[in-house]
Amino acid sequence: MKLVRYGEKGAEKPGLVDAGGRVRCLANEVPDIDVAALDTACLARLKTLDPKTLPLVDPDVRLGVPVSGIGKIMCIGLNYHMHIAETGSEKPSEPMLFMKATSSLSGPRDPLLVPRGSVSMDWECELGVVIGTAAKYVSEVDALKYVAGYTIVNDVSERDFQKKRAGQFTKGKSCDTFCPVGPWVLTADEVADPQDLRVETDVNGVSRQDGNTSDMIHSVAKLVSYLSQFMTLYPGDIIATGTPAGVGAGMEPPMFLKAGDEVALRISGASADLGEQCCVCVADD
Amino acid sequence: MKLVRYGEKGAEKPGLVDAGGRVRCLANEVPDIDVAALDTACLARLKTLDPKTLPLVDPDVRLGVPVSGIGKIMCIGLNYHMHIAETGSEKPSEPMLFMKATSSLSGPRDPLLVPRGSVSMDWECELGVVIGTAAKYVSEVDALKYVAGYTIVNDVSERDFQKKRAGQFTKGKSCDTFCPVGPWVLTADEVADPQDLRVETDVNGVSRQDGNTSDMIHSVAKLVSYLSQFMTLYPGDIIATGTPAGVGAGMEPPMFLKAGDEVALRISGASADLGEQCCVCVADD
Repeated sequence: MKLVRYGEKGAEKPGLVDAGGRVRCLANEVPDIDVAALDTACLARLKTLDPKTLPLVDPDVRLGVPVSGIGKIMCIGLNYHMHIAETGSEKPSEPMLFMKATSSLSGPRDPLLVPRGSVSMDWECELGVVIGTAAKYVSEVDALKYVAGYTIVNDVSERDFQKKRAGQFTKGKSCDTFCPVGPWVLTADEVADPQDLRVETDVNGVSRQDGNTSDMIHSVAKLVSYLSQFMTLYPGDIIATGTPAGVGAGMEPPMFLKAGDEVALRISGASADLGEQCCVCVADD
Repeated sequence: MKLVRYGEKGAEKPGLVDAGGRVRCLANEVPDIDVAALDTACLARLKTLDPKTLPLVDPDVRLGVPVSGIGKIMCIGLNYHMHIAETGSEKPSEPMLFMKATSSLSGPRDPLLVPRGSVSMDWECELGVVIGTAAKYVSEVDALKYVAGYTIVNDVSERDFQKKRAGQFTKGKSCDTFCPVGPWVLTADEVADPQDLRVETDVNGVSRQDGNTSDMIHSVAKLVSYLSQFMTLYPGDIIATGTPAGVGAGMEPPMFLKAGDEVALRISGASADLGEQCCVCVADD
């Protein structure tokens, strides 16, 4: 299933995208695509529905963040071999972890705000892992059982805020709208292998990232297990699993986002379609 | 007012602490001490109540995190001159920012879990600033208008996870229960000067931290204004403003927390009493 939330910001309704790409309403089935809806039993029940029986939604409707009640966004840095090369970094000895604030969450077609003073705003297309079941001290072998589904996360980053304004990455990672998610959550049963997904970014129609999750240093299963050794992962939590090569900071010369630029992100596999998110940059004045 | 939440975890009720130190029930006035309750008008209404008219609560009741719906916990590192000295760090050129996950929130008397593999778990008593009104691009002069109140935050830190396990501070800062908050939120009208508060930690009855917010490098007003240049601060967000000297890692030899240890934190000023939180360490097996 492709689960979405649609409607005005703050008043989104639950839906799914059918085989024909049309949004259909799930409001008679669940109050929201939230922590409760991500429960294994609830997802199994929704899967028995015939999408054709669900009401159609205006195709031009706004899409929101496809999960509500996201408690934390855990991000993995330097998790693709070729991205490490382009940043000139060392391969970290274990998964490199940082956070984005949930206040940076944004819909998959919402404007991407360029903060005041931004000079180096960059894109990072990432496979987002949506937790479905609370996970603590879980093994790598069991880890994928705790995953409800997958989505696209743009780990938008202001490089100067991130690296030149003292301290940790937080300032460059948590600006408002710096975490567009979606368009949908593809439930885990439809992703045969999370390590075989193509990860792409186009900026203004030009391909800038074209990687594959097979190039990840630490697999999704490893990351879920690893993080659960430090903290409980709760339903609705998102792990952004790192970005492949092709960020703006790695270009010669570097290229950064400015008002008017369009950023399109896609992730897909043999039979797994995570869709496309597309945001246009707007000055945050 | 001293606002609290009391009762079983996940089912806390709103209350206040009266002049005699007794918890009284506010459930007939507000559904929770949440984002809505922190609104200026709501706080003004609650202040008109005569505490004596409110039902008394069992004095042995559990206290929860005094605010529900905390969206983000923004933490300032190296914000006291004497703490910088003990860590051997350089004074950062601007406020040094990192995050704790909201899943690490814990009540002010709840057990403090020692994670598996922990070897260097440390305390950091900090003044917590509770945002009451959404703040974006606000000036330092106006910043304190956006503050609903103050509380005590223990920025519990596993130093090896924080510094020796690759990457950012996140792993050592966001373990379950690593963010005890409370006992209460003291509303801002009762804090004449947030830069004149004594900040203390006792471990097993021995004084380990005894600083004053007058030693802060960046004031509360500066921090609210500064953070709001990067992201919107929402009602219920907490800023942990950094810790004074006296952490375990700064001792000769270093001293760290283990199961059975008791950590008591107090913050108070001339007429401002933020109370005491006291947690006992328990192995997270």
